[in-house]
Amino acid sequence: MLPFLNDYQHGGHPAVLAYLQSIQGQAFPGYGEDAICSAAADRIRAWVGIKGAPVHFVSGGTQANLTVIASLLRPHEGVIAATTGHINAHETGAVEATGHKVLTVENAQGKVTADAVREVVTSHANDEAFEHIVKPGMVYISHTTELGTIYQRAELEALSTTCRALGLPLYLDGARLGYGLTAEGGDLSIHDVARLTDVFTIGGTKQGALFGEAIVFTNAALAKDFRYHIKQRGGMLAKGWLLGAQFDALLKDDLYLSLSRHANALALQLRDGLQNLGFALAGASPSNQQFVRLPVSVADALAESCAFGTITQGEKERVVRFCTSWATTGEQVDELVEAMERLRG
Amino acid sequence: MLPFLNDYQHGGHPAVLAYLQSIQGQAFPGYGEDAICSAAADRIRAWVGIKGAPVHFVSGGTQANLTVIASLLRPHEGVIAATTGHINAHETGAVEATGHKVLTVENAQGKVTADAVREVVTSHANDEAFEHIVKPGMVYISHTTELGTIYQRAELEALSTTCRALGLPLYLDGARLGYGLTAEGGDLSIHDVARLTDVFTIGGTKQGALFGEAIVFTNAALAKDFRYHIKQRGGMLAKGWLLGAQFDALLKDDLYLSLSRHANALALQLRDGLQNLGFALAGASPSNQQFVRLPVSVADALAESCAFGTITQGEKERVVRFCTSWATTGEQVDELVEAMERLRG
Amino acid sequence: MLPFLNDYQHGGHPAVLAYLQSIQGQAFPGYGEDAICSAAADRIRAWVGIKGAPVHFVSGGTQANLTVIASLLRPHEGVIAATTGHINAHETGAVEATGHKVLTVENAQGKVTADAVREVVTSHANDEAFEHIVKPGMVYISHTTELGTIYQRAELEALSTTCRALGLPLYLDGARLGYGLTAEGGDLSIHDVARLTDVFTIGGTKQGALFGEAIVFTNAALAKDFRYHIKQRGGMLAKGWLLGAQFDALLKDDLYLSLSRHANALALQLRDGLQNLGFALAGASPSNQQFVRLPVSVADALAESCAFGTITQGEKERVVRFCTSWATTGEQVDELVEAMERLRG
Amino acid sequence: MLPFLNDYQHGGHPAVLAYLQSIQGQAFPGYGEDAICSAAADRIRAWVGIKGAPVHFVSGGTQANLTVIASLLRPHEGVIAATTGHINAHETGAVEATGHKVLTVENAQGKVTADAVREVVTSHANDEAFEHIVKPGMVYISHTTELGTIYQRAELEALSTTCRALGLPLYLDGARLGYGLTAEGGDLSIHDVARLTDVFTIGGTKQGALFGEAIVFTNAALAKDFRYHIKQRGGMLAKGWLLGAQFDALLKDDLYLSLSRHANALALQLRDGLQNLGFALAGASPSNQQFVRLPVSVADALAESCAFGTITQGEKERVVRFCTSWATTGEQVDELVEAMERLRG
Repeated sequence: MLPFLNDYQHGGHPAVLAYLQSIQGQAFPGYGEDAICSAAADRIRAWVGIKGAPVHFVSGGTQANLTVIASLLRPHEGVIAATTGHINAHETGAVEATGHKVLTVENAQGKVTADAVREVVTSHANDEAFEHIVKPGMVYISHTTELGTIYQRAELEALSTTCRALGLPLYLDGARLGYGLTAEGGDLSIHDVARLTDVFTIGGTKQGALFGEAIVFTNAALAKDFRYHIKQRGGMLAKGWLLGAQFDALLKDDLYLSLSRHANALALQLRDGLQNLGFALAGASPSNQQFVRLPVSVADALAESCAFGTITQGEKERVVRFCTSWATTGEQVDELVEAMERLRG
Repeated sequence: MLPFLNDYQHGGHPAVLAYLQSIQGQAFPGYGEDAICSAAADRIRAWVGIKGAPVHFVSGGTQANLTVIASLLRPHEGVIAATTGHINAHETGAVEATGHKVLTVENAQGKVTADAVREVVTSHANDEAFEHIVKPGMVYISHTTELGTIYQRAELEALSTTCRALGLPLYLDGARLGYGLTAEGGDLSIHDVARLTDVFTIGGTKQGALFGEAIVFTNAALAKDFRYHIKQRGGMLAKGWLLGAQFDALLKDDLYLSLSRHANALALQLRDGLQNLGFALAGASPSNQQFVRLPVSVADALAESCAFGTITQGEKERVVRFCTSWATTGEQVDELVEAMERLRG
Repeated sequence: MLPFLNDYQHGGHPAVLAYLQSIQGQAFPGYGEDAICSAAADRIRAWVGIKGAPVHFVSGGTQANLTVIASLLRPHEGVIAATTGHINAHETGAVEATGHKVLTVENAQGKVTADAVREVVTSHANDEAFEHIVKPGMVYISHTTELGTIYQRAELEALSTTCRALGLPLYLDGARLGYGLTAEGGDLSIHDVARLTDVFTIGGTKQGALFGEAIVFTNAALAKDFRYHIKQRGGMLAKGWLLGAQFDALLKDDLYLSLSRHANALALQLRDGLQNLGFALAGASPSNQQFVRLPVSVADALAESCAFGTITQGEKERVVRFCTSWATTGEQVDELVEAMERLRG
Repeated sequence: MLPFLNDYQHGGHPAVLAYLQSIQGQAFPGYGEDAICSAAADRIRAWVGIKGAPVHFVSGGTQANLTVIASLLRPHEGVIAATTGHINAHETGAVEATGHKVLTVENAQGKVTADAVREVVTSHANDEAFEHIVKPGMVYISHTTELGTIYQRAELEALSTTCRALGLPLYLDGARLGYGLTAEGGDLSIHDVARLTDVFTIGGTKQGALFGEAIVFTNAALAKDFRYHIKQRGGMLAKGWLLGAQFDALLKDDLYLSLSRHANALALQLRDGLQNLGFALAGASPSNQQFVRLPVSVADALAESCAFGTITQGEKERVVRFCTSWATTGEQVDELVEAMERLRG
């Protein structure tokens, strides 16, 4: 089975496993208060370029999102997000379960624009019944987005400026941060992300770790008492060093970004191969997720030899997703393109 | 100032005040466990035609909505509603504050259709990641809707049939139930409402009471332990008989519906008057709320002599709402039409 | 039936009803943004002696408690209260339903002491696993307490000083504030309450109103966006002036306190009468609630002619509560004492 | 540093690491819907002896507790637990954050007795104001308890019988289940646990895994839609097979229980050694946690060469905890006893 289902089909990158193996037998303090987490946090701070930024590790992405958002909002506030935003679409109402409404804006290729944020806030403020409407309290974006798209620096600058003018913390979900930073045509650096957001995550699960996300507060004041929140929401790993170790391994020697470049390059190779075969894309993605329109018969036939995701089901056509990761090989991409060529008939 | 701002600008109907005055000095058990509440509940059950239906009284409409919804849903479930639904638009995220997502469907003139419900449920069930998406757990509608529109019997039949087939309790917010039941062109009776929903409210606040809503569970099983929920959410009035008394007064001798008819008739008189003057409606409403498009200059000038609501603000035009109630008089409608005639120039 | 069940068995004081009758027919803006609420808030500010203190009105006591507490705490914080505190004992977990733990301290005759607060905070801070324990975030007290007892000025001074030193807002539930301020042997003035707490309520329901509580923020910063919270929790009355009117009526010409003095005096007359008959008190209360130990047979017999509360049930003995209010008369107290004399045998 | 701080100081048992290494490079479906999780669940079902019991894996213990409890309770219900219960004492109010009160009973050596449960329920049912009090909705126990103690079969039989008579699901937190099942003097088998509870966990984190807990619903009806809950609360691991693999490794060839026996035996050896030296125990524990009273000076001196937990701080004395695990060696116990002998002076 060709493994294009998602970017978390394989375990951790060998360097991650090797690190865990290397510390086997050692004893550590619990709950992330160990030297490995400390070293990993230092490495992260050095990378993102913000001295003293609070860094925390949690077990997963939904965990990170719900914990950050619930820690930042007061009860009457909501979080602005694109309709396609992961918190709105695929976390079983985790944010609402902490008491907060997701204030959706029509996604612009998966993105939230500065204009859309200003429109939500202005419309709220101008409403006669504004106190009867959830108050916008922060903004959630993802990079890459759930559609594989990316923010350009100018877009994130504009969004950040707007958020700061309006007093809204800007939170970037970096579950696929590496893919975003190395995507085709992107100009956003990790320093930009750190400078322009208030808090962001560095995804591990979808980027070569076994599991885990790092949360970086570039606005340190927002991190007050954050460890309580992690514990309360169930995201605090007893053996916290397992998270620190993975990030320490991934961020060493540029591994994180080079794995991302690898996955992106293969995804674009796939994209080009499929386009050459005449298949139409469902949206332009410069990163490791490629969305393609397939006739139902082709999708059904392909499913026998390849694992992929189905995004929408139509009577004649489906939109499917092919995902690459650190574990994808050029041979697998070639095999997939060849299979598609045969199926195209 | 002509009072067309809303349908809760005046205190209770004189019959309500008289009732309260008449029991002054008597002592009652607390929390709604008194003879007056019991009599009012009996009167309600007789009216709606469901023997033994649990009836509860709470202090307000948001209170009723959040308490009913939170009592019916499990944590992973959400409530389907129109985007214009009061719970989605004007209750400051009260439902989300109890942990549940509002699953919005595009409103059809303020209504939720059977097709829209089926589409939400089918789409959820067919999604590969259905467990990552909030599960539809019930349906919320309002009658009249927030746009003044009403469900026809065939529409509510279809919706009810669909909800029952899908296992979704159907909850009707009757904050303006009387206006709905007596609206121009409507064919829905209180017996239909009782038969086709699982739980509904009989609005007091907007229908001539000082305050308060009655909650009627036509599906008695759903009311299990409901008094705990009322208490927990802060909706249980210590002097509960004040609520029972108001409903007993309002539902006696058809007062509730005759006040509604009165308000509806005046609203339609106003509508016709404004249309005759050439003003355009913003949506067709057969009930006590009339939505009209006004040039900004007209709206500004009118505001000096008339209280009304502003729904949307445009550069040249506003959509405003004129509301009638039991307290509105034909003279006031005439005065408003005359004022508009002058302003039209 | 002699009415000693509680202090909310009767409707509002005649002055309250008369006020409501006097404004019948007038139209007001909704949601508490009317001239009557404004006047009532001014009267309250003048009485409590804090210029510019934000004042809000909500429909009931549980509503007030849950809304204030949920608005003040962050998710990982809890509220310190006596085990007997209303929020811990008799609100069906309303505070927990907003996500917060009640951190109980053994009550000292219903009160929270400065020492108890310091002990909770110190013990939390010194715990190795402090981040795994709910952080004390505020303090809740009631005056009178649920046991009828009162804080002396020195006690409240000490508590207030401790709370301020520890950064904990102090919230006083004044559901029975009038009884507290006029209790036998008390030295606490309304100015003291305002000066020593951060937010407190002035109870209406148990003090002669039909319903409603006033919330006074003497620490104005804590009231930020409070109207959103009221709306979200369902406590915002559409016809808000009904609340303002009641407080305006009650606080005029010292009525509030004189009704309280009346009820307290009758309660003490009852207390003395029962003690003279040889019945034992279950705790010393200087206010309108009197707790008495009765043999089961006496309690059963009395229940035929008198409504009272049962606090604890023993095999041979019960603790019962007799409550007075503005509506209690000296004759009723005399009758009760006479009935008890007969039952004593 | 001698590692007696807790039972999660070391990574996973070598068999766990070896398993993870062995599947490196393979691709799996996400979110626990893979063959390894399926095999692990089968192994668990075979061990506990309940065919068809739903088995789920989550990332940690607090996660398991809050997810199970929130999935079982309606909003007005609370969970009965010992004051020392982990959910009450050390999870930062995670249960309250889902909206539910923890109804504490005085712990009996860390345990909840059948009598205590009956007392809570009876007292609630007999209260005049029962609807104003959180309704007991389930019972939480831990085995071993947080004090290292265990339930005897007769105790759990009595508790289970009571819970079933009262309609309360019984949930056993088995974070230290293996230590409990193999504790000195215990007579409770895994079959008993499965038979007498409705849902229980098999702890991984404190029992030799890297992380993770298995949740076993012996009452299958309670597991309805449980995967939604796991996802909503952030406990669903994308690479779910990592959890299945660990449990598959641990439960093979009796490894789970043999590691538990190992840890228990060393703990008792330590206990006896310290008692022989004249140190007093703070409570009798037959399992891998030993609580000892130490003079402050001894505790301070010991802290230089040994990691251990401090439970209570006194002026002259501390209660400390020594914990063993799969990774503890007999030599370490000997060293600790020798160190204590020297410190005793």
